[in-house]
Amino acid sequence: MPDQSPPEAASQPSPTAATASGEAGADPGPAGVSRRRLLGTAGAAGLVLGAAGGAAGYAAAPAGATPLSSVGSDRAMFHGKHQPGITEPLQARGHLVAFDLAAGTGRPGAAALMRRWSATAERLMAGEPTGHDDTDVARDAGPSSLTITFGFGHGFFDRTGLRKQRPTALDPLPDFSGDRLDPARSNGDLWVQIGADDALVAFHALRALQKDAGGAARLRWQMNGFNRAPGATAHPMTARNLMGQVDGTRNPKPSDTDFDRRVFVPAQGDPAWMAGGSYAVVRRIRMLLDDWEKLSRPAQENVIGRRKADGAPLSGGTETTAMDLEKTGPGGDLVVPINAHARITRPDQNGGAAMLRRPFSYHDGFDTDGTPDAGLLFVCWQADPLRGFVPVQRKLDRGDALSPFLRHEASGLFAVPGGAAPGEYVGQRLLEG
Amino acid sequence: MPDQSPPEAASQPSPTAATASGEAGADPGPAGVSRRRLLGTAGAAGLVLGAAGGAAGYAAAPAGATPLSSVGSDRAMFHGKHQPGITEPLQARGHLVAFDLAAGTGRPGAAALMRRWSATAERLMAGEPTGHDDTDVARDAGPSSLTITFGFGHGFFDRTGLRKQRPTALDPLPDFSGDRLDPARSNGDLWVQIGADDALVAFHALRALQKDAGGAARLRWQMNGFNRAPGATAHPMTARNLMGQVDGTRNPKPSDTDFDRRVFVPAQGDPAWMAGGSYAVVRRIRMLLDDWEKLSRPAQENVIGRRKADGAPLSGGTETTAMDLEKTGPGGDLVVPINAHARITRPDQNGGAAMLRRPFSYHDGFDTDGTPDAGLLFVCWQADPLRGFVPVQRKLDRGDALSPFLRHEASGLFAVPGGAAPGEYVGQRLLEG
Repeated sequence: MPDQSPPEAASQPSPTAATASGEAGADPGPAGVSRRRLLGTAGAAGLVLGAAGGAAGYAAAPAGATPLSSVGSDRAMFHGKHQPGITEPLQARGHLVAFDLAAGTGRPGAAALMRRWSATAERLMAGEPTGHDDTDVARDAGPSSLTITFGFGHGFFDRTGLRKQRPTALDPLPDFSGDRLDPARSNGDLWVQIGADDALVAFHALRALQKDAGGAARLRWQMNGFNRAPGATAHPMTARNLMGQVDGTRNPKPSDTDFDRRVFVPAQGDPAWMAGGSYAVVRRIRMLLDDWEKLSRPAQENVIGRRKADGAPLSGGTETTAMDLEKTGPGGDLVVPINAHARITRPDQNGGAAMLRRPFSYHDGFDTDGTPDAGLLFVCWQADPLRGFVPVQRKLDRGDALSPFLRHEASGLFAVPGGAAPGEYVGQRLLEG
Repeated sequence: MPDQSPPEAASQPSPTAATASGEAGADPGPAGVSRRRLLGTAGAAGLVLGAAGGAAGYAAAPAGATPLSSVGSDRAMFHGKHQPGITEPLQARGHLVAFDLAAGTGRPGAAALMRRWSATAERLMAGEPTGHDDTDVARDAGPSSLTITFGFGHGFFDRTGLRKQRPTALDPLPDFSGDRLDPARSNGDLWVQIGADDALVAFHALRALQKDAGGAARLRWQMNGFNRAPGATAHPMTARNLMGQVDGTRNPKPSDTDFDRRVFVPAQGDPAWMAGGSYAVVRRIRMLLDDWEKLSRPAQENVIGRRKADGAPLSGGTETTAMDLEKTGPGGDLVVPINAHARITRPDQNGGAAMLRRPFSYHDGFDTDGTPDAGLLFVCWQADPLRGFVPVQRKLDRGDALSPFLRHEASGLFAVPGGAAPGEYVGQRLLEG
């Protein structure tokens, strides 16, 4: 399969490109630059800064209007070797949604749905209205880095008579002792991930896709999340979670030589329709913040194995310094405790298992006793869950110092096909294969 | 009482100020400019662009780090004639929270709480950590336009023995026929409004204030909201709600000669402790989006009385053109229907009643049948609810074309004292008066 990325998708963002989009006289600014750096330079693949395409949408600025800043005009590409929403920088707002196919939808109905969804996603990601019935909720805004990603759950293959095409990688995840999973908020035949740097753009996309589902699929569960806003931080390398930790330091980087092998199903992979695809593990991980915040800062740092302020390993250095696993303190104890989260999750401690974590934080208010219903919408990407999430979570389950402060409340595993070529819809190689 | 605004608070944002904050060579950019324009130029009062104060916090950029963009470095002032969070531009993220005083807290406990909260709010709004027990969730980010606003509900005055000081303006709102109010999510002794352009900054503030409450007050209800992200739109004059409408066109502007009289209690007002304060009406207004989206665009426009695309009155012109209430079409019918929302809510149709609406949209997922739990966290500000929210809502209740698509699910009315002078805490003139 040829690489379907448009030529500009792999290029670095440049002030020239930004200026060409109409930001005359405006420096693309630190926000634009910092976002691009989040996943390393190559993480910008599939993202076009200040894309001229944005001007084709209803966000086109009228004469005299303030031009879009890079927040509004940043645009990710729908077509490509991989679906969007995997290597793009974390967006400020996210929706995760699962649908179940309606009885009788079957393979033709599922194919028609994926065709509708793909056409809508392409328009939305370009900042264009969905049609004459567009709700106008995103009007005036640019694409705002919107990405829409589609996946198939275990049940999808039963409902569409495609059991033989179901990847073994979709076999149910093993049970973990700490799991407290709510089946109503887990799994699902279809999964959609929506991310954007503007909350109205994200909501608009969510409603448009829900309307497209029509009678073919009904909403099963839906979760809202968020990340730091573009431009809010001077530390673009670091994302923080609601425990206050620097999160994602050891994520594979697109510039790593083995990045594609770890994250994406190869072109000659099995099954063939998953070429260029990836598997997403989704976990709603509640953080027991009241307990966590009772710990002193040094105690929290021992749980993680890294300094809270800057994410540097307790063995010294900066955030990106390699952790010295053998270093001992004056008393002979390991400086990075044996059950520290960052020690246990290291790829070299897990047979090389690695995954690309790309989460959103969530906060759904408080329980009646004042306990926050907040934590992480953990989303991780890998070529094979048995060499990514599963071995790492198994190890965490056996003795991670962080586990007592977390509660996995929902879980999903989805096969995310490769990106659609122009004229193709997502999953076409499965549904018409 | 002298105007306690620091001299720079009333000044216009300038590239010079931005450069002084460390954004060397970076144009403050369209995002910064557009945000300032949201409520008109004078709406920037109390907001300092690229404030040097941000550098005093833990957001100070280390050598070599990408400097904060204006999103992170924008800072509103805690001290002033009025509390922050009233005239500042809408922020991308908001939390509304109500607390009830614990039995036995009384006046001294309430005073101590307001002192703690004021000290914390001042630090947070400067982008500084709250102390050694700071959770670090906002670390690396600037103030991000954070505002924290405190109000007192009807019950506050019973619990503190200050019944005689309770303003008559806090008398319970009348019932409206369309109300479907949930008492558990309505009212409350204390109300806190948090707004910021970064979701982690807002969450950090929420948790810090919850911790400060300690045993003195317990959380009663909490709601999350959002608005368009800074820089996502080229149309800074317009905010949109989840019905896709331009919202806020007729809001009073700080540059209006009668703005202060409409929004703030005067210096010689009654009661004296409310000088410079305002009354906030809070309504959780669910939008029945499935019904709304079934209407054609012309039908929606007749409900509102304005064009959906640009907010212009149906009688012609642009968003800011005065509505021609008498204009008739070829058939002799009024062009702006008699029950159109924008006609009914006009101040000149309500004895001059006016309020400053400053809402957040909300989306708390979907009901089990797929109906979105979404709408508006309506917050409006006025010197007197009987000359603001009440008469307008009464009129809407009698025959507004929009009402069938809305459901008021929660309600609160709060006395928001004037801003604290340096060394003073919010509400001190009541609690130590």
